[in-house]
Amino acid sequence: MNDTGLLIVLSGFSGSGKGTIMNRLLSRYPEQYALSVSATTRQPRAGETEGKEYFFKTKEEFLRMIEQNELLEYAQYVDNYYGTPKTYVKEQLEAHKNVILEIEIQGALKIREQFPETLLLFVTPPSAEVLKNRLTGRGTESEEVIHSRLVRAVEEADGCEVYDYLVINDDLDACVEEVHHIILSERSRMERRLSTIETIKNQLKQYVKGEK
Amino acid sequence: MNDTGLLIVLSGFSGSGKGTIMNRLLSRYPEQYALSVSATTRQPRAGETEGKEYFFKTKEEFLRMIEQNELLEYAQYVDNYYGTPKTYVKEQLEAHKNVILEIEIQGALKIREQFPETLLLFVTPPSAEVLKNRLTGRGTESEEVIHSRLVRAVEEADGCEVYDYLVINDDLDACVEEVHHIILSERSRMERRLSTIETIKNQLKQYVKGEK
Repeated sequence: MNDTGLLIVLSGFSGSGKGTIMNRLLSRYPEQYALSVSATTRQPRAGETEGKEYFFKTKEEFLRMIEQNELLEYAQYVDNYYGTPKTYVKEQLEAHKNVILEIEIQGALKIREQFPETLLLFVTPPSAEVLKNRLTGRGTESEEVIHSRLVRAVEEADGCEVYDYLVINDDLDACVEEVHHIILSERSRMERRLSTIETIKNQLKQYVKGEK
Repeated sequence: MNDTGLLIVLSGFSGSGKGTIMNRLLSRYPEQYALSVSATTRQPRAGETEGKEYFFKTKEEFLRMIEQNELLEYAQYVDNYYGTPKTYVKEQLEAHKNVILEIEIQGALKIREQFPETLLLFVTPPSAEVLKNRLTGRGTESEEVIHSRLVRAVEEADGCEVYDYLVINDDLDACVEEVHHIILSERSRMERRLSTIETIKNQLKQYVKGEK
């Protein structure tokens, strides 16, 4: 097929394994996926490379990017800005790569406003109990820490019903394959293949008319 | 998962290979798929068994089935009726089997009216040229026969834009796997997993409240 890649948002609970799923997809199918590289105003840490972990920007540069509508979405944490540059994502999509963004629901909805064809996947452990156990860790955390993680989990899932898929991460390997196949299958959805069927239908009509 | 099977309609051009795809799915994954068995008023042919190829009915029985709304869809060809009995399909779905119906667009739309969650797949060869070559056969058919097949192909595709997926049958084996993965992926769509995420969210809220 001659189509571009898909833009995919992977969200989910902290502890759902979404980061691992993303990394596995990239290492198993490097020719099919690209990670989105974020822009940030925070200082590079030791070992971080421009254009790999992040595109490092000054605050002035970042504000100019916002102003010129060069970001798909952005957010501010503490004193730093983080955002997804449009150009990089578009280049990857045009190179037939599926681009995965690991962001939260609010950012996902902003992206879908601009690119309605964005695919939204929400990852969850198989049950609340499993999630709680993962968040509780080795039993060394204070009740306060555990409580605040549970509060965060409730917030993380708020509004996830608008997502396209709910991916249940029970077995990691099976889950990575499931996500991969969801993405492959989505490429065959009729709304993404309207031009293909249109071409076939027009050609058939020409055959009937005897024009070709 | 504890959900029921999916109802799947497989339509497509004559010569698209949809019948073969269906048979391969059934033989590769017999525990996951069931074929719908049609009811018909036509006489059984040699070797045909009641409940296997068809449920054989008298015209009176068939008309009673229509009247009592026991058919998902039905059609009349020449002097005989053909239809899809609801009970059999429901039993298979409840036994967690995905039920595949090989029918044309008009019947597919009637079924979707009654079961909006029905999955509609349309199978096409990779191009109109390939389809034409398949319909032309070994070059032994008259121009009239070929023309009428092409006319039929145009009719077969009329309205297929409302289908969920356009499956391109280029390589048969790959296509069978693609259809299988589309069906597996569809089971993870959010609208089919709303009760799962609802349960997880409610449970999390109870943890936060400290009720459990």
